[in-house]
Amino acid sequence: MIRLFHVPLSPFCRKVRLSLAEKKLEVELVEERYWERDPDFLRRNPAGKVPVLRIDDMILSESAAICEYIEEKHPTPSLMPNDPEGRFEVRRLVSWFDDKFHHDVTSNLLYERVNRKLTKSGYPDSKNVKAGSKAIKYHLDYMAWLLDRRRWLAGDSMTLADFAAAAHLSSLDYISDVDWNRSAVVKDWYAKIKSRPAFRSLLADHVSGFPPPEHYADLDF
Amino acid sequence: MIRLFHVPLSPFCRKVRLSLAEKKLEVELVEERYWERDPDFLRRNPAGKVPVLRIDDMILSESAAICEYIEEKHPTPSLMPNDPEGRFEVRRLVSWFDDKFHHDVTSNLLYERVNRKLTKSGYPDSKNVKAGSKAIKYHLDYMAWLLDRRRWLAGDSMTLADFAAAAHLSSLDYISDVDWNRSAVVKDWYAKIKSRPAFRSLLADHVSGFPPPEHYADLDF
Repeated sequence: MIRLFHVPLSPFCRKVRLSLAEKKLEVELVEERYWERDPDFLRRNPAGKVPVLRIDDMILSESAAICEYIEEKHPTPSLMPNDPEGRFEVRRLVSWFDDKFHHDVTSNLLYERVNRKLTKSGYPDSKNVKAGSKAIKYHLDYMAWLLDRRRWLAGDSMTLADFAAAAHLSSLDYISDVDWNRSAVVKDWYAKIKSRPAFRSLLADHVSGFPPPEHYADLDF
Repeated sequence: MIRLFHVPLSPFCRKVRLSLAEKKLEVELVEERYWERDPDFLRRNPAGKVPVLRIDDMILSESAAICEYIEEKHPTPSLMPNDPEGRFEVRRLVSWFDDKFHHDVTSNLLYERVNRKLTKSGYPDSKNVKAGSKAIKYHLDYMAWLLDRRRWLAGDSMTLADFAAAAHLSSLDYISDVDWNRSAVVKDWYAKIKSRPAFRSLLADHVSGFPPPEHYADLDF
């Protein structure tokens, strides 16, 4: 049995959930309030963060390494291109979303609006929220630039790069922080990925105290 | 000709330099003062950061993706294990150093003491420096725990994980922020990696306004 210790709106956990689901690997989800620093959890993962995946008798942390491991052990359907250049582009974009987008957008919007309340660490800092709202426009435009040239973010097939991006955007969409009217190609891309069976578990998430907007789970948003 | 746009003490650039040198790929180093946001540089790399590598007529950014690309195109000598479990552990540790160690230690020490002065953005924040000095002890202990069980950080052979760690520690050693007396196994590990020909270019670095301590380039430190 595969078990994933996660929090529902974490984009890093969502990326792993999407990878597992796309490969039809059944997983038991265990919500882990990592900020409470449960000693059992810290023993499993000295970095003290989620996701943590128990699979093949191993306990894995770090979402990028986890997704590459899943890909190598379960290569079908493939989420990585066959050529080194294609794989480079996927890894570059995964880092782009998990480092830069995360720093510029996710941490300023999702962490301010949701995580602060969940972890009881004060009120949202409006300066950060404003910076995040500004930065997401630039990132949506960059995605539109890529999608004007390619069917999917890293090329002509769907890859881990699309899952990394969709993981961040779906968490932000849960709190209505994505303006889908900004770019038609980005909206089309999200509609395509949102309608995949792998996405269903994400669309069923409900975080206590934060009801999702109606459009969140609607495939015709 | 391979060209690397870099700054000398950036651990991300150093990791790429070590990978290239270990594989005996000659590289032209171009110092890039990325914080001055030169338009030519931003055109090459919209993330506006280093390293940026020009190789095989491609322009590559994101150090983890760059190192995997170099590894795939030039697999000998190998810096990645052959089994998925071994590769997972390498990628986990690369993320550990480039995310967690970077956040806890490098950004608090190197960026406060050096980057602030270089980029003319004020004086070191002593609170951060104190936090970094405390955190590096915990990280050195974690490395010692790993090295008590393994010849190299990720297993029995030298990998990208060792280069990621050595890249951070060598930059910190340049400003005398590593206490090599804390752990004999960590010191032995660093002595081994420091004496490799691939390390020579790093040991020859000189940053104007920041002369390195005598022990920095000394193989018998």
